[in-house]
Amino acid sequence: MKAPIRVAITGAAGQLAYSLIFRVASGEVFGPDQPLYLHLLEITPAMKALGGVAMELDDCAYPLLKGIQTTDQADEAFAGIHWALLVGAKPRSKGMERKDLLLDNGKIFVEQGKALQKADASVRILVVGNPANTNCLIALTHAQSVPPERFAAMTRLDHNRARAQLAARAKVDLSQVTNVTIWGNHSATQYPDFQNAKIGGKAATQAIPDQTWLEGEFISSVQKRGAAIIEARGVSSAASAANAAIDHVKALLTPTAAGDWFSAAVLSDGSYGIPKGIVCGYPLRTDGKRWEIVQGLPVSDFARQKIDASVKELQEEKAVIQGLL
Amino acid sequence: MKAPIRVAITGAAGQLAYSLIFRVASGEVFGPDQPLYLHLLEITPAMKALGGVAMELDDCAYPLLKGIQTTDQADEAFAGIHWALLVGAKPRSKGMERKDLLLDNGKIFVEQGKALQKADASVRILVVGNPANTNCLIALTHAQSVPPERFAAMTRLDHNRARAQLAARAKVDLSQVTNVTIWGNHSATQYPDFQNAKIGGKAATQAIPDQTWLEGEFISSVQKRGAAIIEARGVSSAASAANAAIDHVKALLTPTAAGDWFSAAVLSDGSYGIPKGIVCGYPLRTDGKRWEIVQGLPVSDFARQKIDASVKELQEEKAVIQGLL
Repeated sequence: MKAPIRVAITGAAGQLAYSLIFRVASGEVFGPDQPLYLHLLEITPAMKALGGVAMELDDCAYPLLKGIQTTDQADEAFAGIHWALLVGAKPRSKGMERKDLLLDNGKIFVEQGKALQKADASVRILVVGNPANTNCLIALTHAQSVPPERFAAMTRLDHNRARAQLAARAKVDLSQVTNVTIWGNHSATQYPDFQNAKIGGKAATQAIPDQTWLEGEFISSVQKRGAAIIEARGVSSAASAANAAIDHVKALLTPTAAGDWFSAAVLSDGSYGIPKGIVCGYPLRTDGKRWEIVQGLPVSDFARQKIDASVKELQEEKAVIQGLL
Repeated sequence: MKAPIRVAITGAAGQLAYSLIFRVASGEVFGPDQPLYLHLLEITPAMKALGGVAMELDDCAYPLLKGIQTTDQADEAFAGIHWALLVGAKPRSKGMERKDLLLDNGKIFVEQGKALQKADASVRILVVGNPANTNCLIALTHAQSVPPERFAAMTRLDHNRARAQLAARAKVDLSQVTNVTIWGNHSATQYPDFQNAKIGGKAATQAIPDQTWLEGEFISSVQKRGAAIIEARGVSSAASAANAAIDHVKALLTPTAAGDWFSAAVLSDGSYGIPKGIVCGYPLRTDGKRWEIVQGLPVSDFARQKIDASVKELQEEKAVIQGLL
């Protein structure tokens, strides 16, 4: 049995976390031989509900779960952790302006970024709470002792949605759809790249020759999928978002299949002409230890325009929260 | 890769199912090499929400999930299935008498029992929806072509809760607590058996010499745990109940560890002087194919009284729904 790891999850009494925590505790994410402690962070008013979640975790009698810590203090939650899954964020309330949403969340991620300096030296961080890319930028800026490459914002739900849409349209098994990228911001401006995607090892544009669908309905269905789920369920997607967080962690811990890549938003290094200093969706691959941005993919004029629009949005978001950096 | 199996889940747009379906689809329950189809059953008014669940399942891009069928017809849902996880049940509404709860649910399980005759010849059924034992009795009575030993009602959540309580009290790791049994009805009359339970291979009563706690607070804390969760979370336990359903299925598919057993409610064969013809919680073990009731456990006068009280409740429930059998 390995030495236990410590995994922090924020927004831990919320719906998304409720779909995530139990799968993490089961061993599905970090492996059946990896004992763990859960550090669950919530805002003070949610601590009672979080106590209920902790009771339910006890009631699962998980063999790998060696302890649970619940707290409303980021400093405590992040002490000694190996992973931080930053799910919690302030949701947009009715009539709230985007600027205020960015600033209110920004303050949370300033505090959490600072607190992440209490983590284990090996800590890795996934930001799920929206606006995820900019929240991630703020956190990594304030976690001065943590190398920025340990941070990512989640574009994996978009990635999975894009794969599922392409598989359904091409009427093939999901396993056939590879090399999908979500470029840019985890928002309605994201660009799900079908031009470099493959179906059965060949260009997706060959398997799906309908250019109008690819440039139109495909992109917008991925961009607007969240709203479609809310329309049907009455509440936002929690289980599929939690599942994407799991896929993100597993993708970082597992060597990427030869020739394939996965999507995540990381601090830009200037690759693909995207300006440095924003957290932007890219194609990544890893040997299970260190990731790298996949280089040299062709970017068409169509793609360039889409990526630029999303990058512009990220720069605008950064301008709004500049005072917090 | 194995041939796909078909798994039906009822109440599929409900909270418990929302914690269950995604873990089943991930491969955690039936194994990483077992492809599957999900057959999701709901009542007609919940079909729109169920459509949202199906969209989220698509958005998970699960490699093992080969198809999803959503329906409000039990006949369709159960056609060709290998497993039925009967989660859906009518909840007790304010002012509703227990008798009406039994009868309203009874009608659902008459219909589902009949429809289970459309299942694969190998089908196995777990009843989670309450009152689970009596619902299970009704279903197995009407599923005339399905051998009754394929049916069980869930006492696994109580079993897990009892293990967790004993481990916490004895201050030992959960893995040390074995040989727990939940006798009787999955209700407040259940008897969590500490007298045959073991901690670190020895009698639990040795590790926890506090007889007053064992006979009092331990039993009542397991019996009333559901209410305590509702008090804390504001909603009933979904994730831990879903987790227990997973543990139940895995326990039936995996040879039981030598000397240990697990809890489930099955059709009584008269073992332990419990009358035939009710679905009652027992200690079981299995070789991974066929289960048997563990025989010969000592039953103290204290235990006898507790078991008899729960059996009496099961007989009273049966009397209420006798007209449906």
